[in-house]
Amino acid sequence: MLAKVSMKPPYYAVIFTSVRTEGDRGYEEMATTIKKLVEQQPGFLGMDSARSHVGITVCYWDSLQAIERWKKNEQHRVAQALGRRDWYAQYRVRICKVEAEYGWP
Amino acid sequence: MLAKVSMKPPYYAVIFTSVRTEGDRGYEEMATTIKKLVEQQPGFLGMDSARSHVGITVCYWDSLQAIERWKKNEQHRVAQALGRRDWYAQYRVRICKVEAEYGWP
Repeated sequence: MLAKVSMKPPYYAVIFTSVRTEGDRGYEEMATTIKKLVEQQPGFLGMDSARSHVGITVCYWDSLQAIERWKKNEQHRVAQALGRRDWYAQYRVRICKVEAEYGWP
Repeated sequence: MLAKVSMKPPYYAVIFTSVRTEGDRGYEEMATTIKKLVEQQPGFLGMDSARSHVGITVCYWDSLQAIERWKKNEQHRVAQALGRRDWYAQYRVRICKVEAEYGWP
């Protein structure tokens, strides 16, 4: 199922692309924790996530302020540090303004 | 490997999220064709793609004009029509302005 974003553009999207290291190293447990946590954040609108050779997670937000607040969240900061130490060989974060949206059906 | 986007923000991203139908139905062949074609388009900067329960493809572009031109490309229009008929149960397209970017390492 795709994310159901109730807000109409303009709103914001954070595109997180990554390449994982080998092995789990506690990743799945933290991923579950962080997913639950992000869904509770003010301004969070939804999330789409997929992984093949690379992983892509897109989170939708109602404002840049909500994105900034989540970036500074204490548990999230711990996950970010572990991400750099253990889970990711490489990642990129892109902060985007969603200007238009359409879909099918 | 993640996309290497040489341009600094602001630039544009198109987030294409989808749920596939069952079976291939000619999808992989068209996906290969369209991937080669999009890489040749003026203004194309790179692409990240992954699929689990949902598929996410993010294409990066230097302008809204380049995105509009690609949307109207004849071969791409054929693929869009076949996508709605055969390959996708559901999709969303989001046109985004990338306002900031950072990464690691």
